[in-house]
Amino acid sequence: FSFHSNAPGVRVGVELGAGLDVVDLKAFDPSAPSTMKELLELGDKGLEGAKRALDSGQCVVKRSDIKLLSPVLAPEKVVCVGMNYRDHCLEQNAPIPKEPIIFSKFPSAITGPYDDILLPSESQEVDWEVELAFVIGRKGKHIKEEDALSYVAGFTVANDVSARDWQMKRNGKQWLLGKTFDSFCPLGPALVTTDAVKDPHKLGVRCLVNGDTVQDSSTEQMIFGIEKLVVWVSRFMTLAPGDVFLTGTPPGVGVFRSPPVFVKKGDVVECQIDQLGSIINKVV
Amino acid sequence: FSFHSNAPGVRVGVELGAGLDVVDLKAFDPSAPSTMKELLELGDKGLEGAKRALDSGQCVVKRSDIKLLSPVLAPEKVVCVGMNYRDHCLEQNAPIPKEPIIFSKFPSAITGPYDDILLPSESQEVDWEVELAFVIGRKGKHIKEEDALSYVAGFTVANDVSARDWQMKRNGKQWLLGKTFDSFCPLGPALVTTDAVKDPHKLGVRCLVNGDTVQDSSTEQMIFGIEKLVVWVSRFMTLAPGDVFLTGTPPGVGVFRSPPVFVKKGDVVECQIDQLGSIINKVV
Repeated sequence: FSFHSNAPGVRVGVELGAGLDVVDLKAFDPSAPSTMKELLELGDKGLEGAKRALDSGQCVVKRSDIKLLSPVLAPEKVVCVGMNYRDHCLEQNAPIPKEPIIFSKFPSAITGPYDDILLPSESQEVDWEVELAFVIGRKGKHIKEEDALSYVAGFTVANDVSARDWQMKRNGKQWLLGKTFDSFCPLGPALVTTDAVKDPHKLGVRCLVNGDTVQDSSTEQMIFGIEKLVVWVSRFMTLAPGDVFLTGTPPGVGVFRSPPVFVKKGDVVECQIDQLGSIINKVV
Repeated sequence: FSFHSNAPGVRVGVELGAGLDVVDLKAFDPSAPSTMKELLELGDKGLEGAKRALDSGQCVVKRSDIKLLSPVLAPEKVVCVGMNYRDHCLEQNAPIPKEPIIFSKFPSAITGPYDDILLPSESQEVDWEVELAFVIGRKGKHIKEEDALSYVAGFTVANDVSARDWQMKRNGKQWLLGKTFDSFCPLGPALVTTDAVKDPHKLGVRCLVNGDTVQDSSTEQMIFGIEKLVVWVSRFMTLAPGDVFLTGTPPGVGVFRSPPVFVKKGDVVECQIDQLGSIINKVV
């Protein structure tokens, strides 16, 4: 968890249990890091400190007294994968990619799990995309498949909000601008550590708009799984603690509906993933 | 300047004059920031502190005792512009874009002004691109053209190193991967403040490979000037102190030569811009 409370600045905390109150790591140990990225940079030492704080039962902040932030606030990278669900490729009559298609958002697009999505006046075609996100826990390059999962600190839920007009028709067909408006990357609610997730490739993934289910699939449909994505991207660049990966979206996005559907002011978009929880963002 | 010296960690310094020794800001004032991003976040206060240190004539570190780093080490964004020189569009028979084409590199691609370019085994088509870079000095969104230059802290030289095979033929034609291998963004040697550059749209821009001039143009050829780029990009996202913009390259890149030419191990690539200096990077 990253959160704001009555205490100054950003804090990192650990949940006592699903939906329960939160232990404030810095309140327990003033030398503890106050951002998730710094906590991850400490490696096992950081996790041990968090466990000590949790076991102490001290420094508990009431759930109702905190505002949850995105679990990672200022990663070096937001690495995104396009066309990574078999059923999403079928939906648009596109061939199954032989290699992952990698694009990015700027970290300035990240927003909290219950924050608003700001509808920009520059786009008339803003769409939803529920995605499994994972966060890198340690530095690595040319990572081998058998080691890949040990570089993943944990999982969270993302909405890869996309302005289809800018993504598909403008900016020389480079997707970046349509993907990186401010607030176009809601993330959260928590970073669920890798050891706490049973099988990240068997998680139900759903998106609801105003309560109607618009996407409903499973991470089983992913073409390139988590290990393969870590291996692939680390061929090109050094991965760093805090780097966020968005692993692609299943079918049911608005742009491929007939007629196409896009979000409007007042809409509420909820993205759910089994074992990871929900993020709920109002479009304003 | 950002540099390493005998003192611990990264330091920020001010040059006593072109190519002369450097005042170590943190040695002069222990409360001074040690990264350029933090210095920029201080705004005018930061610049005044730097000027006080410079005027004191104290805490001078010998040029020969320092290793220059990229002036900005960990920006939130590296914003790049494609096809932004008239003569570069002519070279590839491409129409003059009506809007800027924006893509990105990850900050992990940044390397120092005299550091090596690491030739990845994944690419056979690594190419040079000298570019004028500018660095954002303060936070802003929806910036107006008449205010745009006041958001620019200064200028520096960049090489937008590009793996053409990955940029143009793979990754679903998304340019990101070909642009963001580790070390594919040499930057430096210094951040030259905006007030110290006479006319950023009238600077000679050259690239030399092993001493042969391969690119030789002027920022006069830019289609979208600095103000227009700041306005355009800030329509989509909030700009933050330290954000780096690469403004596009003139003609003379290797891929459009006949036959195409790419760099090989041992090559030395020098990028020069009038009033800003040179960066020199060996390919290894």
